[in-house]
Amino acid sequence: MESANDELLQKEAELNNLRLRLKVLERVTEVAANIEDMKRVLSQLLDLAVEITSSEAGSILLRHGDYITIEAAEGPKANLLTDLKLPLGSGIAGWVAKTGVSLLSNNVKKDEHWDSRIAEAIQYETKNILCLPIKSGIEVLGVLELINKRNNKDFVQDDLDISLIFTSFLAQTLENSRLLREMNDRIKELSILIETSTLIGSTLDLKQLLHIIMDKLKEVMRAEASSIFQIDEVTNELFFLVATGEKGQEAKEIRVPWGKGIVGWTAEKGEILNVPDVTKDKRFFIGVDEKTKWKTRSILAVPLKIKGKIIGVAEVLNKIGDESFDERDEKIFEAIGKQAAIAIDNARLYTDLSELFKSSIRALVNAVEAKDKYTRGHTERVTEYSVIIAKELGLLPAEIERIELSGLLHDIGKIGIPDRILLKPGKLTNEEFEVVKEHPVRAVKMLKPIKQLSTVFDGIQYHHEKLDGTGYPEGLKGDTIPLVARIITIGDAFDAMTTDRPYRDALAKEEAIRRLKQDSHTQFDPELVEVFLKCLEKVAL
Amino acid sequence: MESANDELLQKEAELNNLRLRLKVLERVTEVAANIEDMKRVLSQLLDLAVEITSSEAGSILLRHGDYITIEAAEGPKANLLTDLKLPLGSGIAGWVAKTGVSLLSNNVKKDEHWDSRIAEAIQYETKNILCLPIKSGIEVLGVLELINKRNNKDFVQDDLDISLIFTSFLAQTLENSRLLREMNDRIKELSILIETSTLIGSTLDLKQLLHIIMDKLKEVMRAEASSIFQIDEVTNELFFLVATGEKGQEAKEIRVPWGKGIVGWTAEKGEILNVPDVTKDKRFFIGVDEKTKWKTRSILAVPLKIKGKIIGVAEVLNKIGDESFDERDEKIFEAIGKQAAIAIDNARLYTDLSELFKSSIRALVNAVEAKDKYTRGHTERVTEYSVIIAKELGLLPAEIERIELSGLLHDIGKIGIPDRILLKPGKLTNEEFEVVKEHPVRAVKMLKPIKQLSTVFDGIQYHHEKLDGTGYPEGLKGDTIPLVARIITIGDAFDAMTTDRPYRDALAKEEAIRRLKQDSHTQFDPELVEVFLKCLEKVAL
Repeated sequence: MESANDELLQKEAELNNLRLRLKVLERVTEVAANIEDMKRVLSQLLDLAVEITSSEAGSILLRHGDYITIEAAEGPKANLLTDLKLPLGSGIAGWVAKTGVSLLSNNVKKDEHWDSRIAEAIQYETKNILCLPIKSGIEVLGVLELINKRNNKDFVQDDLDISLIFTSFLAQTLENSRLLREMNDRIKELSILIETSTLIGSTLDLKQLLHIIMDKLKEVMRAEASSIFQIDEVTNELFFLVATGEKGQEAKEIRVPWGKGIVGWTAEKGEILNVPDVTKDKRFFIGVDEKTKWKTRSILAVPLKIKGKIIGVAEVLNKIGDESFDERDEKIFEAIGKQAAIAIDNARLYTDLSELFKSSIRALVNAVEAKDKYTRGHTERVTEYSVIIAKELGLLPAEIERIELSGLLHDIGKIGIPDRILLKPGKLTNEEFEVVKEHPVRAVKMLKPIKQLSTVFDGIQYHHEKLDGTGYPEGLKGDTIPLVARIITIGDAFDAMTTDRPYRDALAKEEAIRRLKQDSHTQFDPELVEVFLKCLEKVAL
Repeated sequence: MESANDELLQKEAELNNLRLRLKVLERVTEVAANIEDMKRVLSQLLDLAVEITSSEAGSILLRHGDYITIEAAEGPKANLLTDLKLPLGSGIAGWVAKTGVSLLSNNVKKDEHWDSRIAEAIQYETKNILCLPIKSGIEVLGVLELINKRNNKDFVQDDLDISLIFTSFLAQTLENSRLLREMNDRIKELSILIETSTLIGSTLDLKQLLHIIMDKLKEVMRAEASSIFQIDEVTNELFFLVATGEKGQEAKEIRVPWGKGIVGWTAEKGEILNVPDVTKDKRFFIGVDEKTKWKTRSILAVPLKIKGKIIGVAEVLNKIGDESFDERDEKIFEAIGKQAAIAIDNARLYTDLSELFKSSIRALVNAVEAKDKYTRGHTERVTEYSVIIAKELGLLPAEIERIELSGLLHDIGKIGIPDRILLKPGKLTNEEFEVVKEHPVRAVKMLKPIKQLSTVFDGIQYHHEKLDGTGYPEGLKGDTIPLVARIITIGDAFDAMTTDRPYRDALAKEEAIRRLKQDSHTQFDPELVEVFLKCLEKVAL
């Protein structure tokens, strides 16, 4: 009877233990299923561990490099402990995290690993501690610490056994959560890249593009400033194209010799360079900071490469917040650098071609004009006047571009006119003048097959029309004369008056202005004349 | 004593049950932790369930829409069951999957839901079945089916209870795995997008770009063919720019009226259109298939938009394999369409500008030449001859482009020469000829400030040099005369000989060829003359 009762009691105890373990497992698995909200999972599992082991307090600390950080805390002083960072190896939790060995102490003050500072700081009397590593394979991810068994009891082996269920679950859950977090980070990175690539692919205007890239870099990299250096192949220097950020304006003119400074090194080696603290890097060239009165702390610089050729360097300066740029920043910056290089290269090709086009037209027009000492430089000046008026009117860049091209081509129809008329020293006969008057229509006829030029025909065809309808070729009146033609006609007339002609010397500027005013309403648009005269004062042409 | 013994036996039974449950939980949690390899997890959990419940066989079926598919099978005929697809609601597993209610039957042949066909097909005698839903909330993700309790026993409530541990774990694990899979899919999609965007951003050559986009689309969308339609703003038609795939060549010339066919609809509505079966879609325009002898089954078409304006339509045809394009395809295609539209727009702007540049030069040169009936069209023809030679030599596109531009500008220096010399009807005096001979140097001087033109100076400056050193301006000899100049000089001479001159009529083509051959070695590069004569035969210029 005695022995049967003993056996019964023993079975009963074992049953209780198993029931508890099952209950723990069931509740733990319920909580741990949700790996999307790790903070909540940790806090719920800790609550459960504290409850099941009848502890007063507890915390879960996770390892980050050489530190362990309190990620969840439970108990009377829990709120004082959140996010506390402790060195690996120091204190009981630190020792368990470092060694991966569990520790059970019912008299912590006697334990050789005990560090009383935290307990003292939060004024919490610690008597006993049960501390277990959270391990995935041999890697220690963190520790579970349970403090002060209730009712002044000691922690026992059973408490440790039961707690192992928690740490094993925590390890699994942390692993899965790490995987999710890594994937989430990757998705964020890739999304940023796509957004950036769409944004920077959308313009071929180099200046605008560089501003867009720089702004985006500051935002994405969380940097205080950013710059793009281009390589000047003539002087072998790197120069700032733009610089945004507080001191962006001042930094615009900086040049750095090839191989010098962080930027020069990056260009020379063709590799990304991360300088967490410029004061400790000999390559850092203080000259730029001195010139710009900017204080650089950290730099991340990436070479811009197209088909293996370095075309420049992009850099971000001073990561916002305490830290410097990390490995993830490097990865994103390299990827953006690749996209940026492509976009910059495309924009440069376009800008180059656009300049080639305009300078070629200019060169040919100048060559034609150069045969006549009287008209030499006329087109250049008329174009300049027209552009100044267009800018003063606040027209859009595309419209200004159109007016510039119209100006350059306005007299192109004269190419077909024989030298004997065009270069005639005296006054022209009526017949000769009729031939000259054909030049606006000749020009349009000549350029008609070029569909991209259709927008400039207005300016070319109608730049000899007059407001009162006495001009040519069509005798248009007032507002029916296109704006661009009304603009060019003013510059055209002003230049004709202020330069020598075969039949008269150049008029004084004042006289030319007087005539412009006098012929407003009949020949010229009075508002545009006003605008032109305002420009003349400003720039003292 | 009797009662104590009973109690002891009862405790012992309960203990055994709890021990089993704990063992199951422990083993299950071990397996279920790895959510990265779902196939393995399912098979391991099934093994465990079969073992723990002492079943002969078992399977895990997951729901995909209106079907359940066997994802893991265990038992003597397991290999015959893999990937079997069953309709939801049919058979015991189908009923459990549909209703979410567990079913335990120890005489399946009497069960109203029993469908004997599978058992008969695999010749497997089924006596009893335990079938449980795998549920996440109210959603049924699949079922766990256990078949034939060993030793001819019946399944009991305990088997069902223990199996609930498995299904609860399976549900959690499937949920997490679904999350991972979704994230993985997203990462793959985004990576494809970035790769595509980098690839298509890397060229401004419209023709090359369209080929790159089409190839990439076929690959990424797993389609048999792909095309890009552009909008012809004059005729309001959509036309194929390129078409890749088996019948790509034949499809190149197809035009579709605005609003007509799948492509026209897509352009008009500005929305993506997914046609899984073209035979069932009235919008499908059979004309293209008839013309190309291509058999279209499914189409996915996406509008190409730039700042809200439709510039074209991209489509992929016939998804490889059984299925048509799905929602995920739509998402990726829309994203690629966005990138493609940007790249196409950039390339068009560049191509447009490039054409504008060349046609403007052409127009100005033609205008200058038009003053002289003898040289009218000379530059065009010389350029044409030079380009034909360059192509026959197999030079790179950039080099051919350079030769074209050199040809267009080769006589540009004549602009500065007075009409009285240039248009003189008779023979020139020595002094006059000296002025004419200045034109290569004049041209280079005139174009010098345009750095982008530096590559064409060779052709312009040296197109009057002769192999024996008697040419001008520098009297270069043999190979020291740049290739481009040696090419232009042949076209230049041939055109001069075959057109009228003030001092003689045009020579017959045969006579011109004879003179070219005769002056090989002294004036012309003999190899290039050979090449030119070959071209002449081919194209019958």
